[in-house]
Amino acid sequence: LSSLLKYSHLLDSTGNLNILSLGEGNTPLIRSRQIGPTLGFDHLYFKLESLNPTGSYKDRFAALAVSGLLQDGAGLCLATSSGNTGAALAAYAAVAGIPCHIAVVDGAPAGKLRQMQAYGAHLWMVKDFGIRTEQTITVFRELQQVAGSYYTAVQISAFAYSPFGMQGVQTISFEIAEALPEVRHVYSPAGGGGLTLAVALGFERSESGARPKVHCVQPVGNDTIATPLRKGMTKARNVEASSTTISGLQVPNVIDGDEVIQACGRSGGTGYLVEDDEVYYWQERLASTEGIYCEPAGAVAVAGFVRSLKEKSVDRNDEVVCLITGHGFKDPGSTEKMIVNNPVKYISGIIELKQNLNESTRENIGG
Amino acid sequence: LSSLLKYSHLLDSTGNLNILSLGEGNTPLIRSRQIGPTLGFDHLYFKLESLNPTGSYKDRFAALAVSGLLQDGAGLCLATSSGNTGAALAAYAAVAGIPCHIAVVDGAPAGKLRQMQAYGAHLWMVKDFGIRTEQTITVFRELQQVAGSYYTAVQISAFAYSPFGMQGVQTISFEIAEALPEVRHVYSPAGGGGLTLAVALGFERSESGARPKVHCVQPVGNDTIATPLRKGMTKARNVEASSTTISGLQVPNVIDGDEVIQACGRSGGTGYLVEDDEVYYWQERLASTEGIYCEPAGAVAVAGFVRSLKEKSVDRNDEVVCLITGHGFKDPGSTEKMIVNNPVKYISGIIELKQNLNESTRENIGG
Repeated sequence: LSSLLKYSHLLDSTGNLNILSLGEGNTPLIRSRQIGPTLGFDHLYFKLESLNPTGSYKDRFAALAVSGLLQDGAGLCLATSSGNTGAALAAYAAVAGIPCHIAVVDGAPAGKLRQMQAYGAHLWMVKDFGIRTEQTITVFRELQQVAGSYYTAVQISAFAYSPFGMQGVQTISFEIAEALPEVRHVYSPAGGGGLTLAVALGFERSESGARPKVHCVQPVGNDTIATPLRKGMTKARNVEASSTTISGLQVPNVIDGDEVIQACGRSGGTGYLVEDDEVYYWQERLASTEGIYCEPAGAVAVAGFVRSLKEKSVDRNDEVVCLITGHGFKDPGSTEKMIVNNPVKYISGIIELKQNLNESTRENIGG
Repeated sequence: LSSLLKYSHLLDSTGNLNILSLGEGNTPLIRSRQIGPTLGFDHLYFKLESLNPTGSYKDRFAALAVSGLLQDGAGLCLATSSGNTGAALAAYAAVAGIPCHIAVVDGAPAGKLRQMQAYGAHLWMVKDFGIRTEQTITVFRELQQVAGSYYTAVQISAFAYSPFGMQGVQTISFEIAEALPEVRHVYSPAGGGGLTLAVALGFERSESGARPKVHCVQPVGNDTIATPLRKGMTKARNVEASSTTISGLQVPNVIDGDEVIQACGRSGGTGYLVEDDEVYYWQERLASTEGIYCEPAGAVAVAGFVRSLKEKSVDRNDEVVCLITGHGFKDPGSTEKMIVNNPVKYISGIIELKQNLNESTRENIGG
C-alpha cells in the first residue's frame, strides 16, 4: 500500500485523489550498528529516503504534485530544477502520460540531467539562468506566466510555491512515528527548508503521539535558518551567496525558512551548523561502516547529530533519527572524494592478495 | 520487518541466524499504466528489485550470505565480481564490520567499481583475469584455496557455489505470491541462471498457493538455457563466447543452468530469446512511459514478455509479473543510449520554450 494512500486521512484535499504510485515511501528505518554504538548511542536510526524510486525523498512530493495535476486536468508539468526534484517530477509525469518541461540552470552538470532525460523530460538550459540574478528573476516570472496560460502552476518543491505536493513529504514523519512512537530527536538537512518544515508539521499531525524535537541542520555556507532558529529569532534571512559545496543545499534565499523556524521551535528543536568537510567525512563513514551509500546532502543530518552531542542535549537512551535524503548514485563526483584513499590495486596474481591478507590479519590480532 | 526475517520459516538453516538488514526486500510491485494497457494487458506488473539498498536484487543474496559468514565466525568476505554482486557484498560486509576483498576482472569499468570502493571494499584487479581462460581458472582456484585457509568460501551469487546466500533470493517469490496469489506468469532474466532458479524454487515453497509459470529470458548472444529449456532438453550448454552487450548477463558457462531447466519446466514455464536492441528499446520505454529507470538487464524480462505475446501463450486476463532487476544508476553508459533522441535544448530566453509548447499543444489537439 502506498504510504500516501495509507496516510491520506492525515493530508488535506487528497480524499478523492487517484494517487499515482511508483512505490514511493515506506522507506527502511535502519538501526545504526557502527556509528551510533561508537558514540555510545544504542538507538540511533537512519531513515533511508535514498531508497525512493528516483533516489530521493522528492518522490513523496512529486507523486502528490503530479497526481494533483492530473486531477486538475493539467496537460503538462512545468518546473525548474537541476537536481532531485526534476528527476522525481520527470518520472511521475512519465507515468502520468503528460509532458514535463524543466528549465535548468545554465551550466548544470550533465550527470544530474541524464536521469531526467531518461524519463523523457524536455530540458531547457536557459542562458544565464541561475547565474545572473536579473535573468533568474525574469525566467522565473515568465515561466509562471506560461504556466498560467496553461491553467497550471510551476512545480517547485517548497511549501511557498507548491503546498499541495509538499504535504506528501509529511508521510516521512507518519512512518517514523508509527515505527518509533518514543522518538525524541529528528535531524533534517535544510536548503530552502521544505523538507524540515514538512517533517515538523507531520509530527504535529501524527496519530501515534510521537512528538520529537525536530532539528534543522545547514552547512555553514548556507546559514539561512539554523542560526536564527538557535537564537530564538522569528525570521530566517537571505545570505549573500551560498558558499557551501553540498549539492542541493545551495539555496541563498529564504523560501520556507520563517515557517521552519516556527515549526521547529514548537517542537523544541533547534538549528545546527556543519562544515562541508564534516559532511563528507560522515558520508564516507555511512558507506564504509554502515553500508549506506548516500549523496553529500544525505549525510548532513548525521553531521548535525554529532555536533549536537557536544552540547549534551541528547540523552544516550534517546531514540534518534537522522534523515538520509538522497542516494549516492545521484552525485558520482562526490564518490571520487570518498574513495580517494581506497584505490583499486593492480596485481599480476593472487599471491599479492594473499600476502596482504596475511599482513592485515596479523595486524588485527595485534602481531 | 525484513523480508528475510518474515519468511525465514520458508528458508533453510536460518532459524537462529542474526540477519543483517539494510532494508532489502519488500520491493514495490507496480501495475503497468502504459506498456501493459497498450498491449491489451490490464494485469501486467513490475517487481522493482532496482529499489533494493545497493540497487539490485543481489542484496537478498548478500544479506544472507554475509549474515552466514558472521555466524560462522569468518573474519573476511572474499568474492569475485565486477558488478552488482560485488556492490551488495561490499555493503553488507561494511555493516558487518568485516573486510571485503573482491577480485575484479582486468579492465572492469571504473564506474562499476566505484560503488564497491565507496563501501570500503578492497578491490584487486588481476592481470588477464576474465580475459585469458587459463589465468581465470588459476585465479579462481587460488582464491578458493585462500578462502579455505581462512575457513571460509568465495562468495559467488550462484546456487552452484553459494547455495545458503542464494536461497535469500527466493523471498522475491514469497512477496509476489502474497501480493498476487493468482499470478500466472513470471518472466526472469538469466545469465548464469541463479535468479531464475531462486524464483522458480521460491514459488514451489510459497504458502499462498501461487504457482505461476516461471519463464527464463536470455539475450540471443548468451543462449545457454533458453533454447534447451524450450526444446525440452534436460541440460544447459556452454556458449563459445558471450556476444551480448547486456552487462551482467554475459555468462558463457553453465552455472545453475541444468537446475533452471528442471525448475522452470516443473512450473510449466519456457525459455525466450531477445535481441539486445529489443532490450534497449524496452529499457527506454520503461523510463519514459512508466517512470521506471533500470539498467539494461532490468528490461530483459519485459522484452521476453513481449516476445511471448506472439505465441499467444498468455491470456489477456492473466496476472503477469516482470522482474526489474537493477537500477538505471548502475550503468550510466547505457543511459547515454536512451537519451540520444532527447538532448538538452539551449535557449536564451523563455520565449523559445513558449513557442515549443504552443506547437506541441497544437499537435496534441490535431491542429
